[in-house]
Amino acid sequence: MLAARTRLAQSLGAALPRTTTLARLGRVHLPALSTSSFLARRGFATTGAEEKTVPYTADKLTYLKRDPAFNQITEEHVAHLRTLLSPGSLLVGQSDNDNDLLPYNTDWMNKYRGKSQIVVRPRTTEEVSKVLAYCNEQRLAVVPQGGNTGLVGGSVPVFDEIVLSTNLLNKVRKFDPISGTLVCDAGCILESLENYLGDRGHIMPLDLGAKGSCHIGGNVATNAGGLRLLRYGSLHGTVLGLEVVLPDGTVLENLSTLRKDNTGYDLKQLFIGSEGTLGIITGVSILTPKKPNAVNVALVGLKSFEHVQQAFLGARENLSEILSAFECWDKSAAHLVQAHSVQGNRNPLAEEHPFYVLLETSGSNKEHDDEKLGAYLEKLMENEIIDDGVIAQDATQILNLWSLRESIPEACSKSGAVYKYDISMPLPVFYQMVEDVRARLTAAGVYGPEKMVTDVIGYGHVGDGNLHLNITAKKYDGEITKLIEPYVYEWAAKYSGSISAEHGLGLMKAPYVGYSKSGPMIDMMKRIKKVFDPHGIMNPYKFLPQ
Amino acid sequence: MLAARTRLAQSLGAALPRTTTLARLGRVHLPALSTSSFLARRGFATTGAEEKTVPYTADKLTYLKRDPAFNQITEEHVAHLRTLLSPGSLLVGQSDNDNDLLPYNTDWMNKYRGKSQIVVRPRTTEEVSKVLAYCNEQRLAVVPQGGNTGLVGGSVPVFDEIVLSTNLLNKVRKFDPISGTLVCDAGCILESLENYLGDRGHIMPLDLGAKGSCHIGGNVATNAGGLRLLRYGSLHGTVLGLEVVLPDGTVLENLSTLRKDNTGYDLKQLFIGSEGTLGIITGVSILTPKKPNAVNVALVGLKSFEHVQQAFLGARENLSEILSAFECWDKSAAHLVQAHSVQGNRNPLAEEHPFYVLLETSGSNKEHDDEKLGAYLEKLMENEIIDDGVIAQDATQILNLWSLRESIPEACSKSGAVYKYDISMPLPVFYQMVEDVRARLTAAGVYGPEKMVTDVIGYGHVGDGNLHLNITAKKYDGEITKLIEPYVYEWAAKYSGSISAEHGLGLMKAPYVGYSKSGPMIDMMKRIKKVFDPHGIMNPYKFLPQ
Repeated sequence: MLAARTRLAQSLGAALPRTTTLARLGRVHLPALSTSSFLARRGFATTGAEEKTVPYTADKLTYLKRDPAFNQITEEHVAHLRTLLSPGSLLVGQSDNDNDLLPYNTDWMNKYRGKSQIVVRPRTTEEVSKVLAYCNEQRLAVVPQGGNTGLVGGSVPVFDEIVLSTNLLNKVRKFDPISGTLVCDAGCILESLENYLGDRGHIMPLDLGAKGSCHIGGNVATNAGGLRLLRYGSLHGTVLGLEVVLPDGTVLENLSTLRKDNTGYDLKQLFIGSEGTLGIITGVSILTPKKPNAVNVALVGLKSFEHVQQAFLGARENLSEILSAFECWDKSAAHLVQAHSVQGNRNPLAEEHPFYVLLETSGSNKEHDDEKLGAYLEKLMENEIIDDGVIAQDATQILNLWSLRESIPEACSKSGAVYKYDISMPLPVFYQMVEDVRARLTAAGVYGPEKMVTDVIGYGHVGDGNLHLNITAKKYDGEITKLIEPYVYEWAAKYSGSISAEHGLGLMKAPYVGYSKSGPMIDMMKRIKKVFDPHGIMNPYKFLPQ
Repeated sequence: MLAARTRLAQSLGAALPRTTTLARLGRVHLPALSTSSFLARRGFATTGAEEKTVPYTADKLTYLKRDPAFNQITEEHVAHLRTLLSPGSLLVGQSDNDNDLLPYNTDWMNKYRGKSQIVVRPRTTEEVSKVLAYCNEQRLAVVPQGGNTGLVGGSVPVFDEIVLSTNLLNKVRKFDPISGTLVCDAGCILESLENYLGDRGHIMPLDLGAKGSCHIGGNVATNAGGLRLLRYGSLHGTVLGLEVVLPDGTVLENLSTLRKDNTGYDLKQLFIGSEGTLGIITGVSILTPKKPNAVNVALVGLKSFEHVQQAFLGARENLSEILSAFECWDKSAAHLVQAHSVQGNRNPLAEEHPFYVLLETSGSNKEHDDEKLGAYLEKLMENEIIDDGVIAQDATQILNLWSLRESIPEACSKSGAVYKYDISMPLPVFYQMVEDVRARLTAAGVYGPEKMVTDVIGYGHVGDGNLHLNITAKKYDGEITKLIEPYVYEWAAKYSGSISAEHGLGLMKAPYVGYSKSGPMIDMMKRIKKVFDPHGIMNPYKFLPQ
């Protein structure tokens, strides 16, 4: 016991400078990024130089055909749309590759690119209603777009669909500190809401890497999971009410702030995770937890995924109600983060380890939490479940440790093209998928030094059984895709997993829903779609198999 | 501070004998009651003597007319149904008041009574499918029935609908201790599941007074709330998957045990709270929390509801992640429990108080929880927010304190007829409804000693903003009803509340949904109903306005 304690303390001393005051705050956030600075980070706004690197989706995925039931947009349409909106709310492109519209046509991964010439940015729910009613009447297809941080091509057009952006719907409507209920516009940026609540002693019940750009409406529409689901549950539980505009312009107003309301079918649930295919979410009412008085973050190194599992079961037993995150990544992910020095990250542990786990506790009593976490980590050291570990000693160190985890997607992107998969499955086979894919790509001769595939990386939310499998390659290549898909989907189905734990279906996985849902389920989904959107104008070509 | 501590300790000493060992268990449960013993408790099974006391719903609510689109049941129907079921699964009545069928025709409150002559009790999902497909084809109306513990007349027939009982669908299918996921038949009794899980170190995420009789399928179909919602959230978050049979016999099989699955519309959410109007839930997959190592229960007495609110805000701040229940009741409720000596309950506090709060903590470390609870209660005493209090010292005392709260509905029933309302609303006006209703009934001259209305009682889940308003009367009386309804619904609407927090709509509130949902919302619900149940055979006359 003493030996373990000394070893842990030494690591702490070696890796991160100790300070006398432990952090009493929640995670420190960067200032919210505006959409333009986010786009600048992606290399868009300033030069437009990268535009040619993203081929049109329609050229790449030749099985997709523009639905002739949708009308082409005419000058009359544009003129009429202008009458429905406040000044400055309509963007009209002049050519396919117009720089103004490129950020709206291209996804975060630079993987999908549409050809829309029209972006509408309503400022009120009423404007959304008028625009949708008109598009529905005129059979003009519409893509709802929030922060455009999706990973499955769901938030950009395929052909010439009108982009309806929630950028300008960005006001907090009300916050009640007694109940912790927040009501806000759909276009509020997640991090801005977190900052707003932080000043009022609350936090958002969800947090994710894209928080500086993603919109709460998009989070709800895609049922975003993220880093706090383990503790605060899914949006199906925390969203209390929605305001939604249906394609025919009808506003379903149900921004309830009640924790309980059993009066009829819970329609809002259908919109949570519907990816903009049923209507447009314009307002969100959400239950926000109290900001914890005490937050601890530890990073530990482990020998194998078997050890990760043991550490997780121990955390559930010993940290129980204060456990707020249990994130894991492998050596390959850590290497990439080091290699690309994302935000100056370096390994705070003395040596390399096959696996890393970041665990966070959030509670109301710092002393109690320290005691629980200390006892738990000592037990892990003693039983040789972990090999090394550090505990953040202040808010900056908390941020630094989280940065190691949150930088992984960016580090992957810097490696070239990234094939991203997002699977949920039973914990015992969690990491086996990564190993099986590595073996498959190695056997096919495409993975290794100087080969097309440069890395196969596994990381994710162990507490939710949610693995992010990222495969980095020199470029997107049809042959590589064929080696991976539908293999990973078949794999997920074989182990009763889901082919999309949290990213959604979008364009990427629409053809593969059958791996996770039965025929009768998909049929019923199509019938539901028909009820809400009889002309199919909402986010076409996506979500469900055509 | 010292004075407060002494006072609290004295109360503890005076009211409940101290034991040296504090309880390290969850709440102790009574053995699960079988349906027959439950019915016996209601005075049904043995004599049938009370049957004449419950008038037929159809005679009482004359605005209800039997829908002629439904066929009358013939001998051919009965003969065919028999071929679809295992032996012993079909009960056929001989006359309107046949004793065998009375428990299926009459609700828990003895308020609603139907005239069904047929009860089917399938043993498998396949049998449910065959029965429903046949009923759908033959246009025979069906009422799904679980434990028949509903409070809004939703689980009994109005006319001659066939009762489809889940009594014989009562097997646990699987439990995974790593993920805590339980998959079971819809007819499993909640308390039996709690006992099953208790042996395996887990608990159900919901708990309610009717646990000895209610079925998990009925809990899901009515989106039951109950005593643990404050801590573990609603069934919309904890139910991971459902198996549902649609009216045409289609089985929607989606008993996923995954915590995250974003593949298509989350159809199961529609069934949670649909009250048997879309199909029949036959299987449930649900996330079960670890059984807490430490449970504490305290009962405190307070001067006013203003003090109750202050105590609640303090509990959220100081007990935070370990707070698992915050239940409140008024002096009238306490009086009734004492008067009827339900299970020998007596006031453990030295004096009477205008309000009582039972609060429970559940955590992983007994010492930490004791310290948090002790410090919180001392602060309340010091600030004169509470006037007295006791903390349970062992499992028996925990059970006794809980019994004070859980006996309230039974005590009300023993007073005569009970008008039950179940409103959610913002906390500041929580108790005002009780006062306003008292004033209204007093002004009308019907409330007081020797009057028709004997008591107006308020109790409920403060943490969820959910008040149970019970009005006891010598008998159910149309004039009294008119004084209360729609007054309480108008009141709820005025304060942005819900006319049904957790009980559902059933027959009782179907006409009043408009107080909590807008016209477009109700229209959309009707369209959804049509998709799943085009012939309207599932639980007709209920849920939505006709």
